[in-house]
Amino acid sequence: MTTNVQEYLQKNREVLLDKLTQFLTIPSISTDSLYKEDVLKAGNFVADYLNEIGFNNVEMKETGGHPLVYGEWLEAENAPTVFFYGHYDVQPADPYELWDSEPFKPEMRNGKIFARGASDDKGQVFMHLAVFEAFMKTEGRLPVNVKVIIEGEEEIGSENLYPFLEKNKQLLSADFALISDSGMVDKGQPTMLYGLKGFTGLEVTVNGPNRDLHSGLYGGAVKNPAMALSHILASLKNQDERVTVPGFYDDVEELATDERKLMNEAPGENFLETTGVPETTAEVDYTVNEHIMARPTLEVNGMYSGYQGEGSKTIIPSSATAKITCRLVPGQEPQKIQDLLVDYIENNVPKGVTVTVKREALSAKAYKVDPNHALLQKAAESLTSAFNKETVFVRLGGSIPVVEQLDQLFQIPVVLLGFGTPEDNLHSPNESFPLDHFDKGMDVLVNFYSAARQKRN
Amino acid sequence: MTTNVQEYLQKNREVLLDKLTQFLTIPSISTDSLYKEDVLKAGNFVADYLNEIGFNNVEMKETGGHPLVYGEWLEAENAPTVFFYGHYDVQPADPYELWDSEPFKPEMRNGKIFARGASDDKGQVFMHLAVFEAFMKTEGRLPVNVKVIIEGEEEIGSENLYPFLEKNKQLLSADFALISDSGMVDKGQPTMLYGLKGFTGLEVTVNGPNRDLHSGLYGGAVKNPAMALSHILASLKNQDERVTVPGFYDDVEELATDERKLMNEAPGENFLETTGVPETTAEVDYTVNEHIMARPTLEVNGMYSGYQGEGSKTIIPSSATAKITCRLVPGQEPQKIQDLLVDYIENNVPKGVTVTVKREALSAKAYKVDPNHALLQKAAESLTSAFNKETVFVRLGGSIPVVEQLDQLFQIPVVLLGFGTPEDNLHSPNESFPLDHFDKGMDVLVNFYSAARQKRN
Repeated sequence: MTTNVQEYLQKNREVLLDKLTQFLTIPSISTDSLYKEDVLKAGNFVADYLNEIGFNNVEMKETGGHPLVYGEWLEAENAPTVFFYGHYDVQPADPYELWDSEPFKPEMRNGKIFARGASDDKGQVFMHLAVFEAFMKTEGRLPVNVKVIIEGEEEIGSENLYPFLEKNKQLLSADFALISDSGMVDKGQPTMLYGLKGFTGLEVTVNGPNRDLHSGLYGGAVKNPAMALSHILASLKNQDERVTVPGFYDDVEELATDERKLMNEAPGENFLETTGVPETTAEVDYTVNEHIMARPTLEVNGMYSGYQGEGSKTIIPSSATAKITCRLVPGQEPQKIQDLLVDYIENNVPKGVTVTVKREALSAKAYKVDPNHALLQKAAESLTSAFNKETVFVRLGGSIPVVEQLDQLFQIPVVLLGFGTPEDNLHSPNESFPLDHFDKGMDVLVNFYSAARQKRN
Repeated sequence: MTTNVQEYLQKNREVLLDKLTQFLTIPSISTDSLYKEDVLKAGNFVADYLNEIGFNNVEMKETGGHPLVYGEWLEAENAPTVFFYGHYDVQPADPYELWDSEPFKPEMRNGKIFARGASDDKGQVFMHLAVFEAFMKTEGRLPVNVKVIIEGEEEIGSENLYPFLEKNKQLLSADFALISDSGMVDKGQPTMLYGLKGFTGLEVTVNGPNRDLHSGLYGGAVKNPAMALSHILASLKNQDERVTVPGFYDDVEELATDERKLMNEAPGENFLETTGVPETTAEVDYTVNEHIMARPTLEVNGMYSGYQGEGSKTIIPSSATAKITCRLVPGQEPQKIQDLLVDYIENNVPKGVTVTVKREALSAKAYKVDPNHALLQKAAESLTSAFNKETVFVRLGGSIPVVEQLDQLFQIPVVLLGFGTPEDNLHSPNESFPLDHFDKGMDVLVNFYSAARQKRN
């Protein structure tokens, strides 16, 4: 049965896609200060849209960093209040040369829209806004009360979000939270996330000589910082994919046999196909699925030292740097893990160099919720119906820090309705979002928002 | 006793320094194809100068790469023929922001001239040309026959030099070779080099996923190439500064006790002071001096992977690359060492990635000559006299591939008259050359060229 709201969305599909395209055209890269104005522009786009729809008290809230957009519609009497969270900032788009079309000139091809942010998270935020518009235009009201926070610092760790949430606890109080910033285990396979990883990060710089040195005239007398960094990194994780920093696994909750079974049976991405690696890896004694869903990881995100140009340059570099992040699982405290790593590195500095460790300020605890919660089951029904396929329940290797914060601060359930797919190339060149997920996803949202109203009544 | 030639050099000091400044202004960076025209311009500067001086058959010789400059003056009857070699190309100047004055706008301060190439090797080449000019202007002739080759590819391994030398063996035949492309162990401490290291190099690239991946969604399933590269590099050299590739030391000539003694007594650079490192290093069982002068080394010259920008980016990089060079000692065959390294790396590829090793085409064997050879002793006398200090005999950690090639091809002694100092910042920001070494060095050259004539008579 197609409702008026769904009809509105179908009729206005082109207009809505044009509007999404405008949103995606703004290079709102929050990590790079060069794009500060564009980040602001993307925030204003959201605020303007909320005003158009008929939200009240729409405001760009100053945070000290990039502002976050607040808006509310609270005229649904006797209905629950939903706190909808999303983000309008995006990851950097480099390396630009690997994109088939420009990252900030959205292009439709093969049933997908290609652009940085198409899936993470502008595309998914836009679906909610479009659904709000459709409710207001056809029914003059939303089925539930809605408080919206769309932030501009998710891709850099949401540093200013938590203080804002804490300070505005009263303003933001709600019955449950709703987030669409995740994906399905496979295209067309509806998925309910009931767990997320946390994270913590740091940057290690090995400092050697006061300048790059001639490798012949100094080689032998002066420790090579790039080699010293390699020794440090290799000492953090062994070839069995096991982190070797003492204490790293101390607080990790062991996996129950039945949960391991579920994880190993979960449908998933064919990693060999989608990533092109010669073989997958996994921590010794764990399967790939177990490792991704429920075991902590340590990854080098970037590394640089010395000469990177064309040809050769026979130097001992003056320094070497690596960026590192860990994904954490339930039980692990981000601060404790960061301390363990920093202490281990600082206590094992190779002779002849000094080491500076910069702690990433932002971190998040892992999150896990009971998959049988009524709201999750309701969301799963909406998914199953729109995608015409049974919804699977999984834990995710990624992190959405706000989920853990909402859990801690408001003690409300957090429903993760993710419409992305493993083919979306999140954080990579050629990010995309399938147009049929755009259409079906909005169906899910119409159903779920309506169902949430009925529930209270 | 000041000769007419020396008087000419003193009187024309300002004019000559202006001319040197012009030479140093040309950014003749041979490794970067962006500077191809500038490399040519620097070659033409040398050719024009040789013509001005009165050299014959001056020509830019095509090599397939950057051309080399040839010129000859062969009218010294009954005198020996000197083959003078130098190079007009320079190392890249990055990182530019670490220079106190522009690398290609030479500046005199604190008794030094600052510019890329001031010491290596434009400044030293220029001293020979100025001395030739002085002989011709005052005496109308040179004391010896001179064949000059100034090449434009020394900083990228002199790939085309050896084939040229081989093809023009007749044209270039000489009684001995003379090179000023090295330095003294300390400022004002005249030094005769009687040994040089060889080298070989390679570039290792670890290839992982077909794109940068989200570290949460793929961490655990996909091997991290930056981490894999760290494991590879850490497996090449241990924390005792010992190369751990099997066979690496097999052909190294052991050092005689008396040579070790000489090396340890040799005056040298205070590395802590000049490089700012917290402590020096040396291969286990060897001293710093022994390691630098006579033990092979393996250095990472550059390394890059993943995200290097501001802030963080939570990715698994798709690849990671390191540039490596080894300095070799007498006994070691460059090709054999390169093979050992390539085989070792290719036979120890971490699971889940592939590795590509690019062999640096250029290499050189180490070189060693009898320090008691008459020409070396004659050169040492000229040095001792001009600098008013006893000349020391040392082996150098650096490489001058042409030395080994001249030795092999022409079987003639190679005299290394180096005027640089450890403070020159070769290959680094703020390269400089002391003006008193410029003056005294030309005195040495006047004496040595004159002495070389007397010798034959």
